[in-house]
Amino acid sequence: MNKRKNINDPLYGFLTLPYEILFDLIEHPYFQRLRRIRQLGMSHLVFPGANHTRFHHALGALYLMGEAITNLRIKGVDIDEEEAEGACIAILLHDIGHGPFSHTLEQTIVHGVHHEDISLAMMQQMNTDFKGRLDLAISIFTDSYKKHFLHQLVSSQLDMDRLDYLRRDSFYSGVSEGVVSSDRIIKMLYVVNDELVVEEKGIYSIEKFIIARRLMYWQVYLHKTVVAAEELLLKILQRAKELASRGEELFATPAFHFFLYENPGKEAFIHSRELLDRFALLDDNDVMSAIKVWMSHEDKVLSQLCKNLIYRHLPKIQVQKTGFSKEEIQAQREIIMQKLGLSEKEARYFVYAGKLENKAYDSHTQGISLLMKNGEVVDIAEASDNYNLKALKGSVLKHFLCYYK
Amino acid sequence: MNKRKNINDPLYGFLTLPYEILFDLIEHPYFQRLRRIRQLGMSHLVFPGANHTRFHHALGALYLMGEAITNLRIKGVDIDEEEAEGACIAILLHDIGHGPFSHTLEQTIVHGVHHEDISLAMMQQMNTDFKGRLDLAISIFTDSYKKHFLHQLVSSQLDMDRLDYLRRDSFYSGVSEGVVSSDRIIKMLYVVNDELVVEEKGIYSIEKFIIARRLMYWQVYLHKTVVAAEELLLKILQRAKELASRGEELFATPAFHFFLYENPGKEAFIHSRELLDRFALLDDNDVMSAIKVWMSHEDKVLSQLCKNLIYRHLPKIQVQKTGFSKEEIQAQREIIMQKLGLSEKEARYFVYAGKLENKAYDSHTQGISLLMKNGEVVDIAEASDNYNLKALKGSVLKHFLCYYK
Amino acid sequence: MNKRKNINDPLYGFLTLPYEILFDLIEHPYFQRLRRIRQLGMSHLVFPGANHTRFHHALGALYLMGEAITNLRIKGVDIDEEEAEGACIAILLHDIGHGPFSHTLEQTIVHGVHHEDISLAMMQQMNTDFKGRLDLAISIFTDSYKKHFLHQLVSSQLDMDRLDYLRRDSFYSGVSEGVVSSDRIIKMLYVVNDELVVEEKGIYSIEKFIIARRLMYWQVYLHKTVVAAEELLLKILQRAKELASRGEELFATPAFHFFLYENPGKEAFIHSRELLDRFALLDDNDVMSAIKVWMSHEDKVLSQLCKNLIYRHLPKIQVQKTGFSKEEIQAQREIIMQKLGLSEKEARYFVYAGKLENKAYDSHTQGISLLMKNGEVVDIAEASDNYNLKALKGSVLKHFLCYYK
Amino acid sequence: MNKRKNINDPLYGFLTLPYEILFDLIEHPYFQRLRRIRQLGMSHLVFPGANHTRFHHALGALYLMGEAITNLRIKGVDIDEEEAEGACIAILLHDIGHGPFSHTLEQTIVHGVHHEDISLAMMQQMNTDFKGRLDLAISIFTDSYKKHFLHQLVSSQLDMDRLDYLRRDSFYSGVSEGVVSSDRIIKMLYVVNDELVVEEKGIYSIEKFIIARRLMYWQVYLHKTVVAAEELLLKILQRAKELASRGEELFATPAFHFFLYENPGKEAFIHSRELLDRFALLDDNDVMSAIKVWMSHEDKVLSQLCKNLIYRHLPKIQVQKTGFSKEEIQAQREIIMQKLGLSEKEARYFVYAGKLENKAYDSHTQGISLLMKNGEVVDIAEASDNYNLKALKGSVLKHFLCYYK
Repeated sequence: MNKRKNINDPLYGFLTLPYEILFDLIEHPYFQRLRRIRQLGMSHLVFPGANHTRFHHALGALYLMGEAITNLRIKGVDIDEEEAEGACIAILLHDIGHGPFSHTLEQTIVHGVHHEDISLAMMQQMNTDFKGRLDLAISIFTDSYKKHFLHQLVSSQLDMDRLDYLRRDSFYSGVSEGVVSSDRIIKMLYVVNDELVVEEKGIYSIEKFIIARRLMYWQVYLHKTVVAAEELLLKILQRAKELASRGEELFATPAFHFFLYENPGKEAFIHSRELLDRFALLDDNDVMSAIKVWMSHEDKVLSQLCKNLIYRHLPKIQVQKTGFSKEEIQAQREIIMQKLGLSEKEARYFVYAGKLENKAYDSHTQGISLLMKNGEVVDIAEASDNYNLKALKGSVLKHFLCYYK
Repeated sequence: MNKRKNINDPLYGFLTLPYEILFDLIEHPYFQRLRRIRQLGMSHLVFPGANHTRFHHALGALYLMGEAITNLRIKGVDIDEEEAEGACIAILLHDIGHGPFSHTLEQTIVHGVHHEDISLAMMQQMNTDFKGRLDLAISIFTDSYKKHFLHQLVSSQLDMDRLDYLRRDSFYSGVSEGVVSSDRIIKMLYVVNDELVVEEKGIYSIEKFIIARRLMYWQVYLHKTVVAAEELLLKILQRAKELASRGEELFATPAFHFFLYENPGKEAFIHSRELLDRFALLDDNDVMSAIKVWMSHEDKVLSQLCKNLIYRHLPKIQVQKTGFSKEEIQAQREIIMQKLGLSEKEARYFVYAGKLENKAYDSHTQGISLLMKNGEVVDIAEASDNYNLKALKGSVLKHFLCYYK
Repeated sequence: MNKRKNINDPLYGFLTLPYEILFDLIEHPYFQRLRRIRQLGMSHLVFPGANHTRFHHALGALYLMGEAITNLRIKGVDIDEEEAEGACIAILLHDIGHGPFSHTLEQTIVHGVHHEDISLAMMQQMNTDFKGRLDLAISIFTDSYKKHFLHQLVSSQLDMDRLDYLRRDSFYSGVSEGVVSSDRIIKMLYVVNDELVVEEKGIYSIEKFIIARRLMYWQVYLHKTVVAAEELLLKILQRAKELASRGEELFATPAFHFFLYENPGKEAFIHSRELLDRFALLDDNDVMSAIKVWMSHEDKVLSQLCKNLIYRHLPKIQVQKTGFSKEEIQAQREIIMQKLGLSEKEARYFVYAGKLENKAYDSHTQGISLLMKNGEVVDIAEASDNYNLKALKGSVLKHFLCYYK
Repeated sequence: MNKRKNINDPLYGFLTLPYEILFDLIEHPYFQRLRRIRQLGMSHLVFPGANHTRFHHALGALYLMGEAITNLRIKGVDIDEEEAEGACIAILLHDIGHGPFSHTLEQTIVHGVHHEDISLAMMQQMNTDFKGRLDLAISIFTDSYKKHFLHQLVSSQLDMDRLDYLRRDSFYSGVSEGVVSSDRIIKMLYVVNDELVVEEKGIYSIEKFIIARRLMYWQVYLHKTVVAAEELLLKILQRAKELASRGEELFATPAFHFFLYENPGKEAFIHSRELLDRFALLDDNDVMSAIKVWMSHEDKVLSQLCKNLIYRHLPKIQVQKTGFSKEEIQAQREIIMQKLGLSEKEARYFVYAGKLENKAYDSHTQGISLLMKNGEVVDIAEASDNYNLKALKGSVLKHFLCYYK
């Protein structure tokens, strides 16, 4: 079979798979399920175009990896075929462990198990299926391969993951503030002392990239209505989990049912093929179809929360720089207790406070390095010609309160 | 509450709702459910970006209606506020009766009930909820309002529905062949003798629109792999329905279960609020989550078909200008019978033939009229300066055969 | 010096020069002058964005050539480095002989000398400057190289020239009808028996390409107001030439003055380095600055025509399928004779008829070949699934009459 | 005649003229000449797509003004028809006084006369031609009309001029960093106490706008090669002017000749219709065609400089944060003196230092005001949730040195 497929992508035109194994990896059930998981969870309730999937994002990041490798090789950076294939596999699978509504599930259904752990566990299982052909990819992914810059292409402040998701999320949501010139940035990449760097003339493109990321956080990822929707989903799953722990029956597909009622624990989970396979059956459809059924569950907290989500009666959300006082929160809880006849404990599902935080650029953990014309390598925040980027190093913290009128 | 929302749309920038009632209609559960129904059914298996929803398309068509009305008024066409609102409501709700994987469901789950019938039935129910405020919209939709051109804006060969879906499907699928200049076409619209016409200078834009539609049919809507996927879904639902009629148990959400096991009949259906409400609970999630569960159903036909869809092992599909002979079809059936140990009747779920048909432009039923500079109104196929458009009036028929290797 | 420049291009992102000699060729005065020659002559009077230059188009076509070569090599087509460089040079220089307002000049200032002849003559001079390094490029350009398909990439119905100019003219004019999917088409190219072919699955992209070209002809290149402007320029240059032949003095830069007053003849022209160098000094600026000065020339025909162009009082233009009768033309001439006090001979500068002709697809001279899945190579007009493309083979002829009210 | 033209614009689709007088103003020779003046002077030597004209920009800004007025009226801001027409005229003509290579000419050919003065003078002459119909537009332009916010739409840190030129320059140059969401920003505009404000939810769009402007300055307007080209043009004109003052003969069109040899002085200039009419005959063509002729002038400084520009042998340019010492500059001058046999005075035309300065956001002169949800109006730099915008208030100063190797 011809595995050199051209896949249509509105962003890059055609996506072509440079290695046959990539085609086979995409065929794997662990990967196919990403077709049924939205990249941006509940954001489509605010941005109706944001229905793009983790499947599509992974293909896009793969495309950018191919571009980056081609470009680095032209500049004389040594990347052999095996390494190139490894980097392509690593980026293709970098997010394979994401479940539906990933961050919400991590706090409820698979409590305490991070998608990074699941990604690695799945890659290892796939490596078995593929008879060890993912060894190099896994070592790049875990940064244990000798060429560190390959890992940086997969995971750093300027990796192919970010370059794709900013452009893609911006494209599908229609929030143009996130458009980044991925091709321009990729043409500026270079490697010095095994470190990924950007040529000095790319400084403004990087500045724009950092700003674009900041703006996407506040305009999309942490948009207050998006936060309200995702917090509502969190409350639904928390309530369902609570009812399940009490032994009450909840409609769910078998796979979803398993995770609602069992608590396998992280170690058991990531070492069990069977559990990983079960997990791989979960996607957005399981969660959404259950929530629709729960709208008529007899528990009035659960049914009301589910109706609120399905009919899009999202909680009001107030965002401010300072925290909310206990009194403010309590006052809102009293209102809903009265209105819906709830106990105080139940009211916590309807009124709650929380935090939003974002750091546009973080030079402490892993900065973006600039290669100056004189050969020096400096952190971009030091090289910029004004205080702009330095200012972006500080993190921004906001507080929110969700409630119903 | 401020109902003048700006909704982000990657195609048109911002969608604004010109009338408050539109906001309330969008809030209605019948409409909200369109958020969970993909516009292009299974096409995302071929075009991974094509996850856009009927919800988004309806908003886009509404936007274009607003543009068309503004433009026609500038040219002196008389449209009063009530009529403008009516036309906006009619286009917003024109597709409200679509179920998940609409055309497939019409052949199975709601056998014999067309989405047009359901759309009208839902509009009538909503009209009750809105105390008759949809009267004018309904009369425009059913073409019983005195101003026929308002109906043409909602439903004709050059309606706002088509203008939006060609652009939108093209945008999300990445198949640029379908891009049409909706703003250009809208600026060329005019009304003569209660008939929607296009000014002569718009002739090439219309020519492009007709060609774009033709190309989208063969490149997307009737793309052979898309057809293979949709036929596979059809077979799954036919098998499930067959098992249900035999009384075998199938996992499904209550709403989906109802339609699998009951056959309400068209008249009962569209006159019952309760049935419409049940139907309104159905969306893509119900179908997909059931199919995933059915992968382990004991009926091997059903389970195999479901695995084929979920793991994307689509049938091979051959397309040709002439029909397939009984012998050819039978030969393929024998292969699968042997391979999977199936009866002949069961093999029909895996090997089957069918037809694809498309007419790019149809001047018999309702042509596109051109207003010449000398005041004459002629059919565009007559006015074009070559034989191109006339050629497009003939319909194209192709035959397909699906089978497994 | 680093000759691997990245050049910004709104269409393709970055243009990179794959061979150092391309950088040096671009530096050559013959090539630099293309910066000062608009690709679309007078079209900017109708499409104010259409100020793009022949310089930019040549770089764009070079980019597409690089893409085509990369793609063909991936598919196993044998193109060695020298051939690749030759094809790149040939496409870069394919239009180097164009003067300002090229087609108009060919009918007046350099009467009887086609830009193709000048292109070849300039390439030969440059070949001398570059010590024979253009030999292979010239043999590709003149189709005397053994690999015919390389010539087809430079000059055929599906060459890189057309692919770039349709997209570029469409982009800058804002007439979206001309957008073609150059990347998609290039990915479909292949070579069979030394013939450039398109894979069968690209049939709809080619269909769109042919239609796009047809639409660009009638909407831009032969737009009636564009024709009116270019015919007006033609009349200005004819009048200037006539006055020059009478020995009357006309303001002009020395280079322009030379061509107004001398008639070197084709053979002398293309064999003389000195004349080519003079010609290479001509660009849009010489013509436009002279016309502005001629607005106050004492010849009232010339001054009036020049004012009409500079102040954009273009002639009325009537376009129809049949020719204009002598009587119609004469009637318009009488009007202007009276109005401006002109002789009949002078009136011919203000009132004149002519023809417009375009053939969207020409399978006689050199068709576009399609490689069917069964291995056959057929003309696309035969393979298309309707009569559409066959219809486009007929040429469209229209007649125009220019006059003033 | 139908004056409701649709003009194609690649940025906004169709530009429509909302008032008939706008059509007549565009027809005026003062305005038509803007077709022949590039918006970005010499930038096309670096960004080959940047050939767009001041004509097109003025139409684009007019379009945005129409959008802004429509949007403000919907929100209840009182703008009557006369005011709307006035604001449209004011923005259409806001830059009418620009000559070719405007900033360079202001330092040489029309020494000491700013384009703002010429714009006003031309508007006043046109007002005479139009019998006073520009009175209101002129009072808006000069900020003497009672509604200050109308002036702010024409000229402020968030005016329609900037919104258009950032998008347009970005579009044509291909430097995507400058893309701003003009439609989004316009939908966020409002008026409080006769002051143009932006609604709080638009804060990130404004942040992006300010950053985009900063990036466009350093990547395009002050791109070092662009600066080198514009400084070279400056030197050419300075030399030409010097030769003219010595009485040496220079080829030039009559209009250009006049300004090379005469020094009318600002007062004489802007009060003389005759001088304004002469000035209106100048455009890019006069300057470029003269420079081409000057390549063979006997003054070797002039001829060498002109060759350097026409053949694009731009000076080397070094940019740094600190000034260049006299010694550094002198050292470079010695090199060129020796190489070309120049006097020290002549060497100053080849080696020179200068400054580049830009302030991304200036809240002292006229800030951008944000309307908070609580009704307060604050400067955006105070409202932003990090130090980013405050940082941008500082101006950035760089020093450059031009020289030849």
